[in-house]
Amino acid sequence: MSIQPVPAFEPPYLMAVFTSVRTEADGGYSETSARMTSLVKEIPGYLGHENAHTPGGLSITVGYFRDQDALDTWRNDMEHRAAQAKGIKEWYESYTLHVGTVERSSGFVREH
Amino acid sequence: MSIQPVPAFEPPYLMAVFTSVRTEADGGYSETSARMTSLVKEIPGYLGHENAHTPGGLSITVGYFRDQDALDTWRNDMEHRAAQAKGIKEWYESYTLHVGTVERSSGFVREH
Repeated sequence: MSIQPVPAFEPPYLMAVFTSVRTEADGGYSETSARMTSLVKEIPGYLGHENAHTPGGLSITVGYFRDQDALDTWRNDMEHRAAQAKGIKEWYESYTLHVGTVERSSGFVREH
Repeated sequence: MSIQPVPAFEPPYLMAVFTSVRTEADGGYSETSARMTSLVKEIPGYLGHENAHTPGGLSITVGYFRDQDALDTWRNDMEHRAAQAKGIKEWYESYTLHVGTVERSSGFVREH
């Protein structure tokens, strides 16, 4: 299997956990999602992000950033803000955002 | 839709993000997973947890705890430790754990 979790980085770094349940409104969502991915990757201090989505259920996206400046750049991005507004207007039934500082991280990759 | 993200709590609190990709070994996984859920819920200071799982891909589980004591109780639980060892031995192709302190949280629930 080629998919891998984003690795553990050297603490401290920031993580933003966005958990959401979608409405049935789909218009423009996947295009906007792809655009957000390409935008966030350009931010200095962006470390990575990943998503898991239970069909018909919860979606969890986690973004990792080296420092507050990197996260603030992403928070203040105008296209990102427009996408957030569209999300509240149409795409999300509910969501929660938790932002914090990672103090400890570890990982495992099976050897074959 | 009845599923909802875990809500935003009053910071500071801790979150543990566990991202994983499974092997094809399934023996005992779902029973152990259910047992871990019932164990963690008994811990004083446990706030909630949630999971999303892309079929055939990444799984993300996030646990929320009021303070370090609550998280340490969970980390040191003997059944939990045994489950972790079994996970490394059999169930996980790879995983990453990120543990940190939530400094900011917010949420949205659509009104109907």
